[in-house]
Amino acid sequence: MRTRPLKVALLGCGVVGSEVARIMTTHADDLTARIGAPVELAGIAVRRTGRVREGVPAELITTDATALVKRGDIDVVVEVIGGLEPARALITTAFEHGASVVSANKALLAEDGAALHAAAEKHGVDLYYEAAVAGAIPLVRPLRESLAGDKVNRVLGIVNGTTNFILDKMDTSGAGYSEALDEATALGYAEADPTADVEGFDAAAKAAILAGIAFHTRVRLDDVHREGMTEVTAADFASAKQMGCTIKLLAICERAADGRSVTARVHPAMIPLTHPLASVREAYNAVFVEAEAAGQLMFYGPGAGGSPTASAVLGDLVAVCRNKLAGATGPGESAYAALPVSPMGEVVTRYHISLDVADRPGVLAQVATVFAEHGVSIDTVRQQGKDGEAALVVVTHRAADAALSATVEALRRLDTVRGGREHHAR
Amino acid sequence: MRTRPLKVALLGCGVVGSEVARIMTTHADDLTARIGAPVELAGIAVRRTGRVREGVPAELITTDATALVKRGDIDVVVEVIGGLEPARALITTAFEHGASVVSANKALLAEDGAALHAAAEKHGVDLYYEAAVAGAIPLVRPLRESLAGDKVNRVLGIVNGTTNFILDKMDTSGAGYSEALDEATALGYAEADPTADVEGFDAAAKAAILAGIAFHTRVRLDDVHREGMTEVTAADFASAKQMGCTIKLLAICERAADGRSVTARVHPAMIPLTHPLASVREAYNAVFVEAEAAGQLMFYGPGAGGSPTASAVLGDLVAVCRNKLAGATGPGESAYAALPVSPMGEVVTRYHISLDVADRPGVLAQVATVFAEHGVSIDTVRQQGKDGEAALVVVTHRAADAALSATVEALRRLDTVRGGREHHAR
Repeated sequence: MRTRPLKVALLGCGVVGSEVARIMTTHADDLTARIGAPVELAGIAVRRTGRVREGVPAELITTDATALVKRGDIDVVVEVIGGLEPARALITTAFEHGASVVSANKALLAEDGAALHAAAEKHGVDLYYEAAVAGAIPLVRPLRESLAGDKVNRVLGIVNGTTNFILDKMDTSGAGYSEALDEATALGYAEADPTADVEGFDAAAKAAILAGIAFHTRVRLDDVHREGMTEVTAADFASAKQMGCTIKLLAICERAADGRSVTARVHPAMIPLTHPLASVREAYNAVFVEAEAAGQLMFYGPGAGGSPTASAVLGDLVAVCRNKLAGATGPGESAYAALPVSPMGEVVTRYHISLDVADRPGVLAQVATVFAEHGVSIDTVRQQGKDGEAALVVVTHRAADAALSATVEALRRLDTVRGGREHHAR
Repeated sequence: MRTRPLKVALLGCGVVGSEVARIMTTHADDLTARIGAPVELAGIAVRRTGRVREGVPAELITTDATALVKRGDIDVVVEVIGGLEPARALITTAFEHGASVVSANKALLAEDGAALHAAAEKHGVDLYYEAAVAGAIPLVRPLRESLAGDKVNRVLGIVNGTTNFILDKMDTSGAGYSEALDEATALGYAEADPTADVEGFDAAAKAAILAGIAFHTRVRLDDVHREGMTEVTAADFASAKQMGCTIKLLAICERAADGRSVTARVHPAMIPLTHPLASVREAYNAVFVEAEAAGQLMFYGPGAGGSPTASAVLGDLVAVCRNKLAGATGPGESAYAALPVSPMGEVVTRYHISLDVADRPGVLAQVATVFAEHGVSIDTVRQQGKDGEAALVVVTHRAADAALSATVEALRRLDTVRGGREHHAR
């Protein structure tokens, strides 16, 4: 066994970073045995010194991240700062100085993964980022290694714990969105500014990363259709319940039936209570992967939090250190398939549409005609009268999203339709 | 990209082997892109020629497996024969001739993993075996790579599809064991001789492999306590149902609370219907992994079958080929922790005990005294009288298995106890 330690620079010492530092210290012997050489924390870059970080060696703290990654003796840089800059510049500098990088930065990977992969490859180093998607749940490695001999057709799941916590609260307590958000904030599940989570940006970044790996195709954040969940109401949950359903924010990456294009999207969707994802509670994540030979696989676990994310970071750290010792690199970007990413209009999906309509003869015929005119076939329809109005619930068969949304627009223009709501359905 | 192909020898061409051959042919371009060089099927060893194998190139078929692995130009040997011999001799010969090995052979790995790992390491080649445990479900790679920076405390799950199919049938249809086994056999879920499955040998081999990887400790098949499921009756299911439970054959690998030893066992267990494993139906597999930092992860999918197993084999094939090209090897055996494997008596577990007792004063006191004398604490007790007899159901708190089984023996010796059944409970 080599005795000269591998040197690790840690960028960021918040919830995840401090946990990484703690485990590297307390489990040093295990890491040494698993890597085949000792690893040493050589420096920790933070934005501000002064704050007490329990269990983190104070003498390693620096505010000069750039100088740290440029030191020249760093083997691996662990980036847990998040955000685009200065993370991007620091990672690039790390590559230039021969360091491999383990990152938990989903936003950066989704935005600029191709360039980062290219830079890593150019300098003969690794870029690993299991922690960027679904915390501790192994997803990146299974997709890019375990299923490397298979053809993935769909990745579908709950990849944002904050919104799942909020939706679960709304479902179980009947609370409205803002009330559930307040609870999530109070319990630390939502940040002070929850936009990235509730508007689906976080899930969309993860969908871009997962789609890219699953389909060997570059998928950028801009390629991902994104709908947040701020407009889901308590009434929507009540209506879903009547249909034996609940509402989840899903990330869905699909290969088209003809195999010639892919799509990636994030939106709330009604799913039957019998669907395994319906029982994913609180801030947990769960992802289905459907592959040609493997069939349907599911991965479930805590999708965020300091310890779970640190577990994923350290798993990557061990792999990257082993590669360093072997003078090799792990699998880099695999984008050879280069399939086009289709826009949302071409996605084949189903809608669940609730309409408030005038309760008089001919209305159902009028509504049904609109569906027919747009070539959208109806799966189930249910009408219930109340005080001169009627509630009409239609679940469609699968059709292109463009046809479905045009149908909804046309329905809204009918003078017999007083209002309505539509949801994606699975 | 290198254009000289990597040469693969396939040992065995049954359900899994023929699917491996088929995918290697139909998805050759994808495999080439993912590996970085073409892979070529150089030979397929079978026991008997003559049988028509659809889609398998006849000119590659040979009955001389030894000559095939000794050819000298083989880069990777894929072993899907199963059983101890000739698989062991062929794998060893492959290593000696510089070939890496991908195996789906759980029996051999559980029996002789340490020696095989040592041989692979000696010759600087890889031994991968994702397919040996739970078919297509990535478990070996997540445990030995994704969680390499974490401390696994428990692996618990359903790892045998045949027995899960039988138990699921018994649960949903009220059928007895032999009736459900007949159905499993007719549908191809059980082999003509189902012993390896129903007596728990298959699950025990997987438990040995999983425990070894999870705890960085050598665990042999003999170290695994094994109880089959042939004695589970329709009455047991009826009784479980009354308690809001079902019965599953579980493989359980645990680190002791003090961290100084590990245990591995396979036995039927009563689990609450609310437990996620209770809803694992038909021949599916599902495994929980509990790690210190990651928390609780679950992996679910098809645990057997030609295509899923081939998916796992091919994922390993890609990894092993990439290692070959890089002149490196992947993680080998990690047994540095070398923790003792405790016998079943020291396992801390719970029992669910049903007793038929005489319905007269003092019986409950007598029974309760037996528990107290053995230091076993009672969680719940339920008594129901019928025709001069009473059914007494006791669920214990957690205690050492030795104390629990001694309690059961002592209860059997009471003259007021006419009969009874006990099950492990979770």
